[in-house]
Amino acid sequence: MNGWGAREVMDTGAEITIRHARAEDFDALWPILRAVIRAADTYTIEPGLTREAVRRMWMDTPRATYVAGIGGEVQGTYTIKTNQPGGGAHVCNCSYMVAPAARGRGLARAMCLHSQDEARTMGYLAMQFNFVVETNLGAIALWDDLGFETVGRLPRAFRHPAEGLVDARVMYKWLGD
Amino acid sequence: MNGWGAREVMDTGAEITIRHARAEDFDALWPILRAVIRAADTYTIEPGLTREAVRRMWMDTPRATYVAGIGGEVQGTYTIKTNQPGGGAHVCNCSYMVAPAARGRGLARAMCLHSQDEARTMGYLAMQFNFVVETNLGAIALWDDLGFETVGRLPRAFRHPAEGLVDARVMYKWLGD
Repeated sequence: MNGWGAREVMDTGAEITIRHARAEDFDALWPILRAVIRAADTYTIEPGLTREAVRRMWMDTPRATYVAGIGGEVQGTYTIKTNQPGGGAHVCNCSYMVAPAARGRGLARAMCLHSQDEARTMGYLAMQFNFVVETNLGAIALWDDLGFETVGRLPRAFRHPAEGLVDARVMYKWLGD
Repeated sequence: MNGWGAREVMDTGAEITIRHARAEDFDALWPILRAVIRAADTYTIEPGLTREAVRRMWMDTPRATYVAGIGGEVQGTYTIKTNQPGGGAHVCNCSYMVAPAARGRGLARAMCLHSQDEARTMGYLAMQFNFVVETNLGAIALWDDLGFETVGRLPRAFRHPAEGLVDARVMYKWLGD
């Protein structure tokens, strides 16, 4: 698979491969990020962000950024960052995005499993999702299946473009022993 | 009270006054912020932050910063910021700090009441505290008394310098109608 350095590839089963993002991946990532951000129905990201602002947010700010491919074509991406500094720095946060055309093929599951391994390797003891929109049923079912517990519910904390004010969940998984 | 412009003062009862912070207030704020940050037992802030990094974090980054005085002397401070961008931007977040020597005199209560009024004026519909450390009993009792609901519990999410890993709460109050 051209462009996927064998040393950094983790094969997660089927034809999905996941590796660290490189600067030149952003051309392939931008349409995926743009589709999710412009839809504005799952993430609390300003929907009008410019390409350059999104590049900084996704590529520069996190501790690490990954791309996920199917058959060598980039179809998903995720980031890991420290969720809180200081006394909260043992808990990480991840954000995942999948190209609309590639949904239902196990990419989000593969990325979440991969991210838990990466997080453990980095020394994190837990992973927290700060804001899982209540209407994002697929994500909630998947995180639930992967062992994340709903530890909080934020009433009417998200303004959904179609549904209006809806709740959001805080989901959490302990990764340590 | 010298230096407290009458137009921007809100008298919250007793001798407590609260106003917007000005750049020159930071000299008086720094010892308060430093004491709370270095103690590292209530906020998820890197305890070793430099004065300049704290100045940026407290004075430049938030949407607004306030100082609270007793008899005209700065003894407390708080900030308001938007908790999440995009679809979460109707929820604000506040952080409050009180000088150790001025605790128990109602400053935190006065600042929290003041911040709710300010937040409503700014158009926010809710206020969220993302991380209230479980051992911070005074804060929990106060927020509870002021109508904040515990909407989440983050297991072992805070490394307390004396107690080790302890839980943190997410607390939330709807400010709209």
